[in-house]
Amino acid sequence: MRSPVLDATPADRERLARVALCRLFEPGDRRVDALLPGMTGLRLFEQLSEVPDTDDPALVSASQDVAARLARLRPDKDLDLAGRLGARFVIPGDDEWPHQVGRLQGKEPIQERTGAPLGLWVRGPLRLDALTASVAIVGSRDATSYGSEVAAQLAAHLATKGHIIVSGGAFGIDAAAHRGALTSAVGHTVAVLACGIDQAYPLGNARLLQVIAERGAIVSELAPGLTVSRMRFLGRNRLIAALTSGTVVVEAAARSGAINTASWTLAINSPLMGVPGPVTQPQSVGVHELVRAGKAVIVTRADDVLELVGRPGEYLVTVPRGPERARDGLTVTHRQILDAVPVGRPTTATTIALAAGIRPETVASALVTFEARGLVERFDDGWQLTREAVRS
Amino acid sequence: MRSPVLDATPADRERLARVALCRLFEPGDRRVDALLPGMTGLRLFEQLSEVPDTDDPALVSASQDVAARLARLRPDKDLDLAGRLGARFVIPGDDEWPHQVGRLQGKEPIQERTGAPLGLWVRGPLRLDALTASVAIVGSRDATSYGSEVAAQLAAHLATKGHIIVSGGAFGIDAAAHRGALTSAVGHTVAVLACGIDQAYPLGNARLLQVIAERGAIVSELAPGLTVSRMRFLGRNRLIAALTSGTVVVEAAARSGAINTASWTLAINSPLMGVPGPVTQPQSVGVHELVRAGKAVIVTRADDVLELVGRPGEYLVTVPRGPERARDGLTVTHRQILDAVPVGRPTTATTIALAAGIRPETVASALVTFEARGLVERFDDGWQLTREAVRS
Repeated sequence: MRSPVLDATPADRERLARVALCRLFEPGDRRVDALLPGMTGLRLFEQLSEVPDTDDPALVSASQDVAARLARLRPDKDLDLAGRLGARFVIPGDDEWPHQVGRLQGKEPIQERTGAPLGLWVRGPLRLDALTASVAIVGSRDATSYGSEVAAQLAAHLATKGHIIVSGGAFGIDAAAHRGALTSAVGHTVAVLACGIDQAYPLGNARLLQVIAERGAIVSELAPGLTVSRMRFLGRNRLIAALTSGTVVVEAAARSGAINTASWTLAINSPLMGVPGPVTQPQSVGVHELVRAGKAVIVTRADDVLELVGRPGEYLVTVPRGPERARDGLTVTHRQILDAVPVGRPTTATTIALAAGIRPETVASALVTFEARGLVERFDDGWQLTREAVRS
Repeated sequence: MRSPVLDATPADRERLARVALCRLFEPGDRRVDALLPGMTGLRLFEQLSEVPDTDDPALVSASQDVAARLARLRPDKDLDLAGRLGARFVIPGDDEWPHQVGRLQGKEPIQERTGAPLGLWVRGPLRLDALTASVAIVGSRDATSYGSEVAAQLAAHLATKGHIIVSGGAFGIDAAAHRGALTSAVGHTVAVLACGIDQAYPLGNARLLQVIAERGAIVSELAPGLTVSRMRFLGRNRLIAALTSGTVVVEAAARSGAINTASWTLAINSPLMGVPGPVTQPQSVGVHELVRAGKAVIVTRADDVLELVGRPGEYLVTVPRGPERARDGLTVTHRQILDAVPVGRPTTATTIALAAGIRPETVASALVTFEARGLVERFDDGWQLTREAVRS
C-alpha cells in the first residue's frame, strides 16, 4: 500500500504527516521536540518511513519504536472521521494556530514530557487563536463544595470579562470551571482532553463535554478514538499551561495533576496563581505549598487574576480596605484628644487634657474643631462625644 | 511635696523615674523615642520636672504636655499597688528585660507610635526573658469558628514545642490562641494589654486573663488602673510584634488591629506569617492581601511557623506529598509500557508494544521486570495488570 501522506497534494502533505506523527508518538515525546525544529513534519515522517540513514540517536530510537504503529497508519481516514464529527486538525501555519504553545519548544522535560504539539484536534466553534486571552483553571477531581463554588464564580467572572476558560474534562474543579464559564453570556470554555476529541471521558461528564463542543471547543493532541492513559494526562497538562495566559489552581492535593500543570506554567514563565482555602482541608495543601514556596501568587477574586493575565495597565487592582471613618483625617494629637473625650458624661477641657496627656491650649482648640465636625458636643459642664463619633 | 522619684535611693530612682514617665506619656509617644537614647529615664524625668533649659523641640513640647499629669504623679504608690496585685515593673537592666524590644528604637512611626517601652508592668510567674522563644498569634475579634480552631491548634502545638504564645486580650483569635496554649502541658501564654495589668478588658475574658496571670503573664506599658483607648491599642500592637520571634495573623479584615501588628512586624524585620482561609470569608481578606503583597509567608501548621522562628537549622519542614506508589521508581518508558498493559484481559507483548508505541524487544524485557515487581501477571495468552498495580 502506498502512503496516503506521500501520495497527497503538497498542500495537504504537511497536515497528513502531522496527523500521522500524532498517531506514532505519544503526546509530549521528547524525541519529537528534539527532532522537529530541524525539519518539517513531512520530512520527519519520511525519515521514519525509511530505514533511517542517520546517526541521530533520537531518530534511530524513534524509528524503532514507531515501526509497529507505522504499518497501520491511515491519517486520511482520521481526517475523514474527524470531519464527520465536525472536528478539524489544526497545525502551525493555519490562521488559528495558537502560537503560544511554542513556549513548550526545547523546555526541560517534566515527567519526561515536553515540546510543542505536532497539531491539535479541535471540535467546536471556538477558534484557537482566540486563546490569547485565556485562563486555565485547574484543580482536584475530589473538590470540596467550597472549591467548586469558587472555581465556578471565578470562571464566570473571567468569562464575562472576555477571557476564555481552559481546563480538563474531569469532575470537580475542571467541571465547575466549565459550568461557571457557561453561565456567562459568551460562555467560551475549552476542555483539553487526554483522549480523542470524540471520547466522553469521564462518562459522567458526557453531557457537559457536548455543551462545551457546541459553545466552545474540545481540544486534544490525540486522534479520534484514542483513550486516556496516565502518560497522556501528563502530556495534556503541559498543553493546558501553554495554551493560556496564566494558570489558576483552585484546589490541589499535595500530589496531583494540577501540580503538574503548575510546574509547566512555571517552566514557560506564565503566571501561576493559587486560590487559598481552609488549612484544615487536604484539597488546599498543594495550593498553599505552591504559594509558600513562592511559586504561585495568591488570588482571591477575578480582578486579582486579571491583574496578572490582562494586558499591562488594563487592570489595576484596588487593595481592599475597610470603610472610611470620621476619625480618618485627624492628626495623631487630635485622635489622642478625641480618645480622652468621654461618652455620655460631659467633662471639662482641663480633665480631658489631663486624660489625654496634651497641653490644655491644644486641647481647647481641638475641641472647637471637633465640634465643627460633629464629633463632640458642648454642654454647660463640659464636652462629650456625639453619637456619630461613638459609632465611627 | 518632694518628688518620690528624686527622694528615693539611687538604685530605685531609675525604676521610679520610668514608672513616672509611663504615667506622663502615652505608650509609643515618639518624643520619648527621640529623647531617651541620649539620657537615662531619671535624667529625662528631671528635665521634665524643671522648666527645661533646652532648645530641643521634643523636650519643650513634651514638658508642656505632661505638666498637668506631672503634678499628680505617685510612682511609689503605683509600685506599692502593683506589689499588692502580685505584679512588678521591669526595666532595662533587669535580668528579665526582653532586649528584643530594642528593635523598636528609632523606627519610623506607624500611626504616630514608635519606640521601645520605658518599662513593662508584668503580672504572672513567667519571666520576660523567656520570650526569646515566642510567637505572636493575632487576628480578628469576630473570628470564624474555623479561625478560632486553627489559632487554638497552632498555639497548642507551638507551646508544646517550647514556644511562648503572645497575643492581646480580645475575643476571637486572641482568646483562642491563649486557650490553645493553655491546653498544652507548659501552657505559657502572655497577654499584652492596652490598659493596666489589673484591668479585665474585655470583661467577658476576665476569667481567661486570670488564668493567664496564674500560668503565664499579663504585660502592659500602662500603670495599674489605666483603661484602654484607641491609641493605646496602637501602642500595644507594636509591643506584641517586638516581644516575639515572629507574628502569625490568623484572620484579619482588610482594616484591623492585626494589620497594624503586621506592619510593626515588618518594620522590625521579624517574620510575618499568615494563615489562609476561605476566600469567601471577609475575615481572611487581610491575611490574603498580606500574602499577595509578598509581606507575609503562608503558614498552615506549627512546623511551618517553627521553620521561620526556630533557631536556624533547628526545624526543617518536610514538604507534604502524596503517598509513595509502586510505579514511582519506573522510568518513563516503563511507565508508558505499563500504561498499555490491560486490566482483566490478557494481551500479547506485541499488542502491548503497539499500544505503547515502544519497540517489542524493550516491551518484552520490561514485562519480565514488571512481573518480578508484582505489577503484571503472565497468562498463556499474554499479560495483564495485577490487582496491586491497578490500585497503585
